[in-house]
Amino acid sequence: MVERKRWSEEFSEWFNEVIEEAGILDKRYPVKGMNVWLPYGLKIMRNIEKFIHEEMERTGHQEVLFPALIPETEFKKEAEHIAGFEGEVFWVTHAGHEPLDVRLVLRPTSETAMYSMFALWIRSHADLPFKVYQIVNVYRYETKHTRPLIRVREISRFFEAHTAHADFEDAERQIKEDLEIFDNLMRKLALAYIISKRPEWDKFPGAFYSLGAEVVMPDGRTLQIGTMHNYKQNFSKAYNILYEKEDGTHDYVHQTTFGMSERLLAAVIAIHGDDRGMVLPPTIAPIQVVIVPIPKKGSEEEVYSYAKGIEEELRDAGIRVYLDLRDKRPGWKFYDWELKGVPVRVEVGPIDVQNSTVVLARRDKLEKITVKREELVDKVRELFEDIMEFLYERANEWLESHIKRVDTLEEAKAVFEDRRGIVEIPWCGEESCGLKMEEELEAKMLGIPYPEEKAKAPEGSKCPVCGREAKFIARFARTY
Amino acid sequence: MVERKRWSEEFSEWFNEVIEEAGILDKRYPVKGMNVWLPYGLKIMRNIEKFIHEEMERTGHQEVLFPALIPETEFKKEAEHIAGFEGEVFWVTHAGHEPLDVRLVLRPTSETAMYSMFALWIRSHADLPFKVYQIVNVYRYETKHTRPLIRVREISRFFEAHTAHADFEDAERQIKEDLEIFDNLMRKLALAYIISKRPEWDKFPGAFYSLGAEVVMPDGRTLQIGTMHNYKQNFSKAYNILYEKEDGTHDYVHQTTFGMSERLLAAVIAIHGDDRGMVLPPTIAPIQVVIVPIPKKGSEEEVYSYAKGIEEELRDAGIRVYLDLRDKRPGWKFYDWELKGVPVRVEVGPIDVQNSTVVLARRDKLEKITVKREELVDKVRELFEDIMEFLYERANEWLESHIKRVDTLEEAKAVFEDRRGIVEIPWCGEESCGLKMEEELEAKMLGIPYPEEKAKAPEGSKCPVCGREAKFIARFARTY
Repeated sequence: MVERKRWSEEFSEWFNEVIEEAGILDKRYPVKGMNVWLPYGLKIMRNIEKFIHEEMERTGHQEVLFPALIPETEFKKEAEHIAGFEGEVFWVTHAGHEPLDVRLVLRPTSETAMYSMFALWIRSHADLPFKVYQIVNVYRYETKHTRPLIRVREISRFFEAHTAHADFEDAERQIKEDLEIFDNLMRKLALAYIISKRPEWDKFPGAFYSLGAEVVMPDGRTLQIGTMHNYKQNFSKAYNILYEKEDGTHDYVHQTTFGMSERLLAAVIAIHGDDRGMVLPPTIAPIQVVIVPIPKKGSEEEVYSYAKGIEEELRDAGIRVYLDLRDKRPGWKFYDWELKGVPVRVEVGPIDVQNSTVVLARRDKLEKITVKREELVDKVRELFEDIMEFLYERANEWLESHIKRVDTLEEAKAVFEDRRGIVEIPWCGEESCGLKMEEELEAKMLGIPYPEEKAKAPEGSKCPVCGREAKFIARFARTY
Repeated sequence: MVERKRWSEEFSEWFNEVIEEAGILDKRYPVKGMNVWLPYGLKIMRNIEKFIHEEMERTGHQEVLFPALIPETEFKKEAEHIAGFEGEVFWVTHAGHEPLDVRLVLRPTSETAMYSMFALWIRSHADLPFKVYQIVNVYRYETKHTRPLIRVREISRFFEAHTAHADFEDAERQIKEDLEIFDNLMRKLALAYIISKRPEWDKFPGAFYSLGAEVVMPDGRTLQIGTMHNYKQNFSKAYNILYEKEDGTHDYVHQTTFGMSERLLAAVIAIHGDDRGMVLPPTIAPIQVVIVPIPKKGSEEEVYSYAKGIEEELRDAGIRVYLDLRDKRPGWKFYDWELKGVPVRVEVGPIDVQNSTVVLARRDKLEKITVKREELVDKVRELFEDIMEFLYERANEWLESHIKRVDTLEEAKAVFEDRRGIVEIPWCGEESCGLKMEEELEAKMLGIPYPEEKAKAPEGSKCPVCGREAKFIARFARTY
């Protein structure tokens, strides 16, 4: 088993190094918070997106593509939304040498781009539910410290699903479906997560309520990797999205959104990683199996030809395989592919040729087994499953060991000092007490557990701020 | 055969209607020249892009993704490039409530975003040739009349390949490869085209030379759908992209680019269309076969079940099929799918159930054949091939019948008045004569035929402006 010491203790440096050395992104682009996607990183992200597209298709969402520029007049139609975003948007004010009549916002998210079109498209109950999505670049003028994949000014791969419904209940069904989609995706990525209902003061600007999905990073801070919002009729009233009911009367649609981004990749890299670098789930690894030939003097030809046969067989079996014939020493190659997180390495030397065997090394545990040549494909597939299971179990243990139930703020502080993730504290439900706890703990309230049945405080527990009867369990964490 | 009268005579209206009614784009987005991609249009475009990705992979291009914003300082490093673009870029000048220290350009193309990174990435001859590409949104402040897919301020699906080479010869090899890639793609789209070498005054800003690929649209105007540029060392000198040669000395790389966009889709829609709407090549049709059941009273169940069996069989054969069970009359459905260009329609009624037959209607010629149920898949595949062949032949005839060799400007004017496409005129090679002809003809010089062997004027032919011996054949057209 590989150590996870630097991974946890110097996570920030570890993460930056892996991003750079594994060829995920180049951070040297000359605009702060905007990075260049390198081929290997982009391939992993595309593989993640393949699952998103599949889930969208399965659930009847249609893909659309909206312009990235939004007229100021459209942007300013929903009051809370503007208040939430206007401090962090980029403005296009000139074209050529002239100022524009109407300034344009580079979308920070696409509600205000989409909803005047929804008003044209949605006419009757027969058009509902209406479900679309896109994966696009969006822009936020982050003033906090930027970090590749995690906090950026250009989110390159922003997923946003937007839906419209006849009533609140149907919108609620959509939120349930979003959670199911999200859970399916997390299984593909072998990630464990929690869902919290955000407090009123941290809802998405314009939402009726917001849910957030979090993972716990190696340094104990949480990362939000998905959000689902029920907007009720807040936006449909601002953008006049009406539909005709079966009885001929008209009403505003209920709306929801569901958002994700390249933070998914950040979570995969961070949570499955170790001191040697990335460990990619086979589901999304651009290279699932790398073959490293280890010839001895004189055996080159037979070893390479044996390796090529293996490559061909794996490729024919639909496995993404790469035969590494670069002019480098095997040790250098091992290091390189371990850093890049390739799930399974095949080593073949003259003895394997002689015995009709191959050596399989799994990246997660760095264990090796020798298998018979004819079992190759089956064994590789088994390993993929084992790796997925191991990664998920480890991620789940990590998550569970980083959620701590406490009763006092002192206990909570101790947890944070120890970088142990999330604390759950009884809470009376008052905003003032929630904000007070955030201040005292130097942490954010993630919200209360969702579904809300799980959010009820045990009988007799007290809010540590006001001392009154606690209504909820509230989660706090230091967040990214 | 369907008429192509409105298609040609009122092409502009025809095109706008098809775009709208077939669900390609919505032009009502509240920013001029920026459109919303609708699901059906986006699916077709993605299918076109699949072939582009395949060709890129085949030829060893790696996919990257650069930020859409370029600092003014980077943008202004290559003099000709700025001169060419600065009048038509969008400027981001503010973020939040503050002006930016360095203004940002929304990329009109990505040379100036990429090349400072190339300077970091490319070190030695071993890194060459260096070949990357991306498909991204780019922005141009077009002052001419905008048209969906054709002339827009947001090009949503801009393909750009950028390469770097050790010397001019290797860059020339790249241009040849680009032409081969382009030709493969055109075959998939059943399009016929010509390649011209642009005159000096119409090169890409910063290029040593530029090639352009054109199709002739239904109204006789040409549409540029691809460009290949050899930059020589113009950009590498401005961006300091040096590599170490085998002998230890350093030199600037030679660079090329290759560009395409959603104009490919515009060409497909326009050139294969007819008065009933689109005719999609089966290679890129999101729905290749639509099944329209035509039950009679009492036969509904058996007809639907027969149709479902057909759907399943086609799907299992890897064909993109849709069974249309909407509550509409068959005639309405025929109209709808013809407009949307679905290549093959399967009609099944009670008689087909009885006789174990199906009726296949091909969209291009609107001919019907009755085939045996068990021949279904084979016949559909045959039809796909026939349709591809027919579309290509027709496109090729259209192109060839719209290129006319003339000797005088009067003849050329007559051709344009007749909307007959492209004229080829002898030309002495002097810029002044070329510009004079552009002015007289109210047309653009596309350039000279490429490869240049084909560009030589016949012996004894004269430049119609100066009367001197002609060196080249020059092509002129009214262009989009």
